[in-house]
Amino acid sequence: MIPADHPRYRSLVARERLADAARDGIASLEGLTAHGRGEAFDYLIGERTTPSAAEAEELAARLLISARRPVISVNGNTAALAAPAIRDLQEASGAAVEVNLFHRTDERIQRISAYLSGQGIVVLSGEYERLVPLSHGRGLCLPEGIAAADVVLVPLEDGDRCEALRRMGKIVITIDLNPLSRTARMATLTIVDELTRALPAMTEACWSATPGDPEEMALLIDNTKFLREAKEAMRRRLTDALD
Amino acid sequence: MIPADHPRYRSLVARERLADAARDGIASLEGLTAHGRGEAFDYLIGERTTPSAAEAEELAARLLISARRPVISVNGNTAALAAPAIRDLQEASGAAVEVNLFHRTDERIQRISAYLSGQGIVVLSGEYERLVPLSHGRGLCLPEGIAAADVVLVPLEDGDRCEALRRMGKIVITIDLNPLSRTARMATLTIVDELTRALPAMTEACWSATPGDPEEMALLIDNTKFLREAKEAMRRRLTDALD
Repeated sequence: MIPADHPRYRSLVARERLADAARDGIASLEGLTAHGRGEAFDYLIGERTTPSAAEAEELAARLLISARRPVISVNGNTAALAAPAIRDLQEASGAAVEVNLFHRTDERIQRISAYLSGQGIVVLSGEYERLVPLSHGRGLCLPEGIAAADVVLVPLEDGDRCEALRRMGKIVITIDLNPLSRTARMATLTIVDELTRALPAMTEACWSATPGDPEEMALLIDNTKFLREAKEAMRRRLTDALD
Repeated sequence: MIPADHPRYRSLVARERLADAARDGIASLEGLTAHGRGEAFDYLIGERTTPSAAEAEELAARLLISARRPVISVNGNTAALAAPAIRDLQEASGAAVEVNLFHRTDERIQRISAYLSGQGIVVLSGEYERLVPLSHGRGLCLPEGIAAADVVLVPLEDGDRCEALRRMGKIVITIDLNPLSRTARMATLTIVDELTRALPAMTEACWSATPGDPEEMALLIDNTKFLREAKEAMRRRLTDALD
């Protein structure tokens, strides 16, 4: 369908994959819009991993392998776009995987869990409980999953939940292309990179990283530096495009 | 549902309206992603009409009221987001309205036409013919619509069709929040503004504009100036956000 030599091949494939996932009840309609927002910021950052993001990915890998209980929170878009990359990261980091949705229905939880299992991912299951101080479905998580985690990777997250997880004392790593978002600003560590570039880079870094004390590492992270560097990269792109 | 005093009320309502329109078969799933891209650029431009965009909107109004045969091309997103504003612009400009879709099916053409008619818009109908030099459904248009137009307003357009319409000698006005897009660069006049802000501003300008010769007006338009000003506004926003 989409020729592999199309200059925007990866972007077009991702878009098609998400539309299919929405038809299959895995991605939500709101998730498609959110993906589009990410596309725009990726375009501005040059659709590549910046040196600053690569550094954040190495730090994230080190946090994951050092954690007592690392957990990856997977939503519909992450499942649709990056299931194989999540499987590899789980293998490299030993992290547990919990399905956790913004537009939550039990049916979508089941569908996504089944899809991820079929892709070789070990998915936590059990009774979701309201253990995150948020109303509605966002406060629900698994007692042995996010509730028990010391380090949580929440790609493509929303700001409220990111903030609530921080307040619970957790180290929160996010992957978010918008360096101005509340999620990006609330996380312990923000990787401003596209999901399917970020996850494999983290996986590779896991295999060679040296473990340490995650709390000490987290104290040394200057997240505003990563956000500033991402904004500067985007500003340069706009400047270069000025006629 | 969404409180009217929410700081992002307009944006959230638009997103919800599009998701509903996708469920109703009016917007396409790909259209939702495209909308998200627009949202990101609108965020960067400050979710407001810049003085430069206001100037482009006045010029666009003047082109529309001066045209021999002005036509507004309406796609699924435009119908879902801005049917009442299209109705007002049709009244003020005397433009014909043609439904023309990127993800084209006869069923969607029918659904959107029926929806627009119900909103008080006079919608062209007839046999679509391949009169634009493009393959697939994109080359189809109405002989008395886009094919006969001297000035075409194509909000939220794709780059290929914008280029093809220019090659046919038409004056093409687009509304596109991404000043780097091919559409924005190919159009005769690009309004870098959000659809539901741009259309009412154009309508108001139509009522007071002085008609002239559209060809002469088009020759005087420096579209790169509008694009440069939009990029500068976005760059300023990123600079202000630098910590």
